[in-house]
Amino acid sequence: MDEFSLIKTYFQAQTKPNADVIVGIGDDAAVLQIAEGMQLVVSCDTLVADVHFLSDWDAFAIAYRAVMVNMSDIAAMAAKPNWVTLAITLPNSDDVWLQRFSQGLHHALQTYHLTLIGGDTTRGPLSITLTIHGIVEKGKAVQRSGAKPGDKIYVSGELGAAAFALTILNQADFFPSDRDLLMDKLLYPTPRVDLAPILQTYATSCIDISDGLSADLFHICELSHVGAVLQLDAIPIHPVVKKYQGVNALDFALGGGDDYELCFTVSPEQEHRFMQQTRSVGITCYCIGYIDAQQGLRAIKDNGESLPLAAKGYKHFNGCGDDAGY
Amino acid sequence: MDEFSLIKTYFQAQTKPNADVIVGIGDDAAVLQIAEGMQLVVSCDTLVADVHFLSDWDAFAIAYRAVMVNMSDIAAMAAKPNWVTLAITLPNSDDVWLQRFSQGLHHALQTYHLTLIGGDTTRGPLSITLTIHGIVEKGKAVQRSGAKPGDKIYVSGELGAAAFALTILNQADFFPSDRDLLMDKLLYPTPRVDLAPILQTYATSCIDISDGLSADLFHICELSHVGAVLQLDAIPIHPVVKKYQGVNALDFALGGGDDYELCFTVSPEQEHRFMQQTRSVGITCYCIGYIDAQQGLRAIKDNGESLPLAAKGYKHFNGCGDDAGY
Repeated sequence: MDEFSLIKTYFQAQTKPNADVIVGIGDDAAVLQIAEGMQLVVSCDTLVADVHFLSDWDAFAIAYRAVMVNMSDIAAMAAKPNWVTLAITLPNSDDVWLQRFSQGLHHALQTYHLTLIGGDTTRGPLSITLTIHGIVEKGKAVQRSGAKPGDKIYVSGELGAAAFALTILNQADFFPSDRDLLMDKLLYPTPRVDLAPILQTYATSCIDISDGLSADLFHICELSHVGAVLQLDAIPIHPVVKKYQGVNALDFALGGGDDYELCFTVSPEQEHRFMQQTRSVGITCYCIGYIDAQQGLRAIKDNGESLPLAAKGYKHFNGCGDDAGY
Repeated sequence: MDEFSLIKTYFQAQTKPNADVIVGIGDDAAVLQIAEGMQLVVSCDTLVADVHFLSDWDAFAIAYRAVMVNMSDIAAMAAKPNWVTLAITLPNSDDVWLQRFSQGLHHALQTYHLTLIGGDTTRGPLSITLTIHGIVEKGKAVQRSGAKPGDKIYVSGELGAAAFALTILNQADFFPSDRDLLMDKLLYPTPRVDLAPILQTYATSCIDISDGLSADLFHICELSHVGAVLQLDAIPIHPVVKKYQGVNALDFALGGGDDYELCFTVSPEQEHRFMQQTRSVGITCYCIGYIDAQQGLRAIKDNGESLPLAAKGYKHFNGCGDDAGY
């Protein structure tokens, strides 16, 4: 049983949401009606040592990345992240490690004006669970389920670099400046919180593509009861991935995950105004295809040939991209 | 460095709360100003296998207890728990275990009208992090910091049974009906959510005594800048603990933790009305002493002798009561 079936069987199917739960299990984050006109958006992510990060990474990066990974789910709902709880399980109390970890944590929090409001500290195998709480105006959260046939499919940045970085972790002789650039993409992802006001206005659906573009776009299709057609040569592949992987670079962009970019849909009528707006926040978004009434994923190659596309991508790292948030 | 110093040094000291954080790190739960007149109360707890529970316990009980343990923090703020996220890390996908776990989880949620709104499922050493979200009217959350000299100290039930249960885990020949009763107290604690409206009206401070009465009452004293005088013979010790432990039974009640009862303070003027009200919800509360201007904890024995009381209690289980929520 994969983790999505596990969640559906044991957690989602048996959950009877109260009326104040606007979006429950099954999207990037939950949306709760907390007051007239205002909704709370909640997302949590666990990072387990040597599954989601390597124990020997700089603890600054481990903490920083943990915040970004989680914020990305709030960004995917087009909400504003505000408050964080941290549940950390530590094998021992290592002052040097904790110093670096807390520096990375507070740097991340300060950069995005978040407050650490509480948590739990326990002994055990190293793991970090962050729960981030955001706020969104009533009805403005963007869900996975709103894509309509004809909508254009966008991604919020170049893809594949983080997944490729995972493959070179043990290659000490990798060209240093490219290695640094790739590791930066893996360790210091930038969640697209700046896109929130634009997504609220223009996106019909949105998802955080942390599991890989094809797998996550497939979630949009499933929940919107539509299909997607991707124009393969329009998918923005990170140039360093292209440089080293050539014709295989596309696989990293389609299946890699860990980039923490967003994939979202925009109606064709809104496309022009949407593009004008994205320029204003300095984020380059790429149109990579369109939504279709015929279910499933299809790809169009540069020679016009159409072929079915698998919803699963490469998994280069033990467990990375294999987990399911819900 | 103990876990409280760790939290203070690395997490609390470096946190600059935004104006909407009414109570941040350092109480049973955080309180956030989310709307006119309404506050969000958030608490999270991690339970690590073979630290906070034994891997071979019935998974139904593991899940049920995880919800109760966490709800107790919301109860200690006198708030109403509403929504839950579950981050679970599993070594493998064991259908029988997951079936029992989800039954225990959903039984707990349904009993208290909570909704599971999301979470994360990861692979790794078994551990469970629950974050519970509650709601409280603005200004009605009861903090640890409000105790005043002269206030009476109350606990919400009999103490020591859960801590004593931990000591008999490996005694297969323990008298069966007493063993069942003790294990019930350990595995199926009852968080005092029913007391919330009464605490809101009458309590000047409140804490969840999951770390043990003396240790947790000491937190109230520290944060309220007061001292406490406990009348030892007024402390309600669970009868089964008395039966087996005799004169040592008090140590379990003072230092044991894991009962998930509440300790709170009530001004003497309000005491009469408070007692009338508790009867109406069927919870027996016990007056065990009073708050004093002289800092620190003191005990009065039945012969009238006064002696200083250590804020630390027994720790019968590897790590239990040793962790710090914040």
